[in-house]
Amino acid sequence: MSTDALTVPAPPSHPYVRIVPLGGCGEIGRNMTVIETNDDMVVVDCGLMFPDDEMYGVDIVINDFTYVRERAHKLRALLVTHGHEDHIGGIPYFAKEFRDTPIVATPLTIALIKAKSREQHLGEAEFTAVKPGDRIRYGEVEVEFIHVNHSVAGACCLALRTPVGTVFHTGDFKFDQTPIDGKPADFARIVRVGDEGVLCMLSDSTNAERPGHTLSERTVGEAFTSIFSHAKGRIVIASFASNVPRIQQTLDHAVRFNRKVAFLGRSMRNVVHFAGSLGHLRILPDTMIKIEDVDQYPPEQVVVMTTGSQGEPMSGLARMSVRDHKQFRIVPGDTVVISATPIPGNERSVHRTINNLCKLGATVIHGTDGRSHVSGHASQEELLLMLNLVRPEFFMPVHGEYRMLAAHGRLAVETGVEAGNVFVAENGDVLEFTHEYGDKVGKTYGGHVFVDGSGIGDVGEAVLRDRKALSNDGIIMVVVAIDAEEARVIAGPDLISRGVFYLPEADGVLDELRAELVTTIEGVSVDAMRDVNTVKEHIRGALAGAVYSRTKRRPVVIPVVMEV
Amino acid sequence: MSTDALTVPAPPSHPYVRIVPLGGCGEIGRNMTVIETNDDMVVVDCGLMFPDDEMYGVDIVINDFTYVRERAHKLRALLVTHGHEDHIGGIPYFAKEFRDTPIVATPLTIALIKAKSREQHLGEAEFTAVKPGDRIRYGEVEVEFIHVNHSVAGACCLALRTPVGTVFHTGDFKFDQTPIDGKPADFARIVRVGDEGVLCMLSDSTNAERPGHTLSERTVGEAFTSIFSHAKGRIVIASFASNVPRIQQTLDHAVRFNRKVAFLGRSMRNVVHFAGSLGHLRILPDTMIKIEDVDQYPPEQVVVMTTGSQGEPMSGLARMSVRDHKQFRIVPGDTVVISATPIPGNERSVHRTINNLCKLGATVIHGTDGRSHVSGHASQEELLLMLNLVRPEFFMPVHGEYRMLAAHGRLAVETGVEAGNVFVAENGDVLEFTHEYGDKVGKTYGGHVFVDGSGIGDVGEAVLRDRKALSNDGIIMVVVAIDAEEARVIAGPDLISRGVFYLPEADGVLDELRAELVTTIEGVSVDAMRDVNTVKEHIRGALAGAVYSRTKRRPVVIPVVMEV
Repeated sequence: MSTDALTVPAPPSHPYVRIVPLGGCGEIGRNMTVIETNDDMVVVDCGLMFPDDEMYGVDIVINDFTYVRERAHKLRALLVTHGHEDHIGGIPYFAKEFRDTPIVATPLTIALIKAKSREQHLGEAEFTAVKPGDRIRYGEVEVEFIHVNHSVAGACCLALRTPVGTVFHTGDFKFDQTPIDGKPADFARIVRVGDEGVLCMLSDSTNAERPGHTLSERTVGEAFTSIFSHAKGRIVIASFASNVPRIQQTLDHAVRFNRKVAFLGRSMRNVVHFAGSLGHLRILPDTMIKIEDVDQYPPEQVVVMTTGSQGEPMSGLARMSVRDHKQFRIVPGDTVVISATPIPGNERSVHRTINNLCKLGATVIHGTDGRSHVSGHASQEELLLMLNLVRPEFFMPVHGEYRMLAAHGRLAVETGVEAGNVFVAENGDVLEFTHEYGDKVGKTYGGHVFVDGSGIGDVGEAVLRDRKALSNDGIIMVVVAIDAEEARVIAGPDLISRGVFYLPEADGVLDELRAELVTTIEGVSVDAMRDVNTVKEHIRGALAGAVYSRTKRRPVVIPVVMEV
Repeated sequence: MSTDALTVPAPPSHPYVRIVPLGGCGEIGRNMTVIETNDDMVVVDCGLMFPDDEMYGVDIVINDFTYVRERAHKLRALLVTHGHEDHIGGIPYFAKEFRDTPIVATPLTIALIKAKSREQHLGEAEFTAVKPGDRIRYGEVEVEFIHVNHSVAGACCLALRTPVGTVFHTGDFKFDQTPIDGKPADFARIVRVGDEGVLCMLSDSTNAERPGHTLSERTVGEAFTSIFSHAKGRIVIASFASNVPRIQQTLDHAVRFNRKVAFLGRSMRNVVHFAGSLGHLRILPDTMIKIEDVDQYPPEQVVVMTTGSQGEPMSGLARMSVRDHKQFRIVPGDTVVISATPIPGNERSVHRTINNLCKLGATVIHGTDGRSHVSGHASQEELLLMLNLVRPEFFMPVHGEYRMLAAHGRLAVETGVEAGNVFVAENGDVLEFTHEYGDKVGKTYGGHVFVDGSGIGDVGEAVLRDRKALSNDGIIMVVVAIDAEEARVIAGPDLISRGVFYLPEADGVLDELRAELVTTIEGVSVDAMRDVNTVKEHIRGALAGAVYSRTKRRPVVIPVVMEV
């Protein structure tokens, strides 16, 4: 990215709070926000984003920690709202760099962070477990964790009290009046914070374009009841491993319909274990069986719960769909429920999995039509309710693409927030609030940091451009050895190609190209021959032209001239 | 693809009809079906498919014409149901090979074929224009074109009468009881064909998983009325260029709300021109203006209609969204209507376009919630109606992914088709029908043919595997010259990489790798040194290992050893 416009003014000497989103504004993923006062700084969440089609070979995308690094002496804590990857996936990288910073979250969130991270990265990390309602002070900032509903247990809003006012961060939320765990959002506490006065609210914008109210998790229960009533064979349910409410629904329905549940895959079993031991799951005795024992039960007494709702190639469901799973084989009569919606970009892989399952004879229930899934994010009516409960002076929609942030900003204005007090921010924007004003005052590094293999940030736009060019039309190398003194070719030109032609059939083409190159090189004057770069340019031009005129393709052409 | 199982038995001597889908079964795109009798053969449609993410660098995907080629002496006609790319996009390739085969379609479909094709490819092609209701005989096969509704005008079902019975091909269709052109499907003719008796029906499965009835195009009119009533500035409507009903709605609303319409882009203007001159569009005088003249009118009197509803990077809408359009700039106050749904796989590019338009201050209306788009394909109730009107003995769902075909097959059984008479076929399946039986008798080439540049079919799985490997982790070449007689290195090793490292920062790494390679090569015995392949394997192994241990990346490694 261009760094021309990056400038962060020296902070004022009077009390201030700066809010700096480093990720998640204008995109879905890698949520992270810095909250900074005169002497102290906390970070809210540190997520990852999955690469899009243009990020060739990139494993994951994380945030640029420069702003935090430059103020590391003020850093007091990493506060984590909940245990989804777009909020915790960057923590191993963060913890490695900021070793002595406590990671503060509810116990299930901490368990999910530990499960998702490679242990070596978190060896030094210090965790602070909190429960909803807890208030902890970090220098000038006091944070209060407030229970809220989401598609994972242990999710919290954060009220961050600072010398110039309270910053309220909703995290990811919905208002479920009939949640499976019986615990609606802590309205009393949210209202109390609102009554005290909130300087600025940051709120989840995922469903800001969606009218109405997100359906309760209970409606999934109704769909499950119908599915369990009709299914004559085994039932397979795919969801995100962290979807504790969905796991509870599966367990409850298994008991009610006299089925046993087998959890498939390490991440799913991990979550069941953590969530069960932390009291987030009610597991009756003799409900669970091992996946190896499934065949000991008649089909109508079996439920299998697995990951793979996004069609991820290595997931349990995707492997089942192509008969590549050692412990479980789909047979005709099985009912498969995909209890999630495809994240944009995953539609094709989800559909591929569904097609393969259908070919194996399974009945596949997917999509939101049958209500076997509901969103975990608040729709417009809930967003409006949150705004009316909190009544912030300033508002900053976060967690969404631009169109969602813009829609959320319009909702805020409808509830009475002044239009000039709504900041539809970009990653890296530095917003500053004092007793007198709130404004954007600067810009820091908010760009994507690509993780590829063990490299963090070393793959940039230039490398991706190369990979894109290679993926489009392949590469041809020409190697020629020249006698530097006599300025004549002594070996080659040899042509090597990858991804351009189907070689068994293209031998003739390569011979022709080689012959053309010989002619080209013979035409180079003795003086030009002494200059390697001139020879290379002649070769590159001649070969690129010859390939294009034959194939209309533009492979990467690399001439290698060895002087012997 | 494996050709092991490919076998097409000699045809029987008694009367038969073979139905061979070459594309469109198990996928969306490249629809094509062969209908063959003892002495004659016709082909229905010849479409293209757009490449998916795994088809690196492929421009388009067409069908394997082998089955047609091997029976070219029997080929009488290419019958085209309607003018969408997934039904006409392969015609230039077909026409080039089967030059004297007439292409038979309604006039608008012919115009769309000509507009989409490069003229040189179709120079030899002979077109036969038909109107709905026409019957034409090609040897033993008589085809009747029957009017039906779809999201392009001029769409037809085909009734193909053969010596052993009638094959009924629905093409793409919906039953719109209140279509914009006032012409519902020709129920009388469909029923008459059904009364005569239909041997086998092939039917559009796109929406076979969708319950109920696809909404009428009229409901889009209601949405447009609301949008035109509220919009204070200019209105931009994006749709497929071929969506003649949508163009008509735009024209009608412009007249009603006192706006002028400018059509943007060559394909959109082409369709307006053809459809207008063929009587498919009612264009009142003084309704249309040139895009260059838009600024002469106040914003509330302007509508611009453009392509780009799929976020295609070079389309009108995508260019507007990034201020890259010379003739039209989005300004705050503009309302943009995306009157289409994203084709699976296009979601991210559509959303990118929407985000960019929002950033420019436009109000963007998209999605089906606001009913600014309806599908052109029949939902379950219409598919059931078609089955009940036609009452076929055999049924073959076409035009859909496997899950859609399977769902459509279940619908057929619900209407009374025997389950054993439903063929959920794969591309290349050869189905044979006689007076006695209907069955799958063989398998021909039904695989993807990739078009890349000017090459047709020369890019196969091997080339794509190479391109995928290159795109994931790049490539490193090692070039070394050895004296063949003395078995010693006389130049190199030189390392060249693309897409692996960010080079300005990786120079040190390359130096280290080079030093390791020197050690490796020095360790090769003199005997081994005389064998180029052994040297290459030593280099490849050492370099791949060294790169992986440093970066956890696995680039393609190409050792080049020149003997001088």
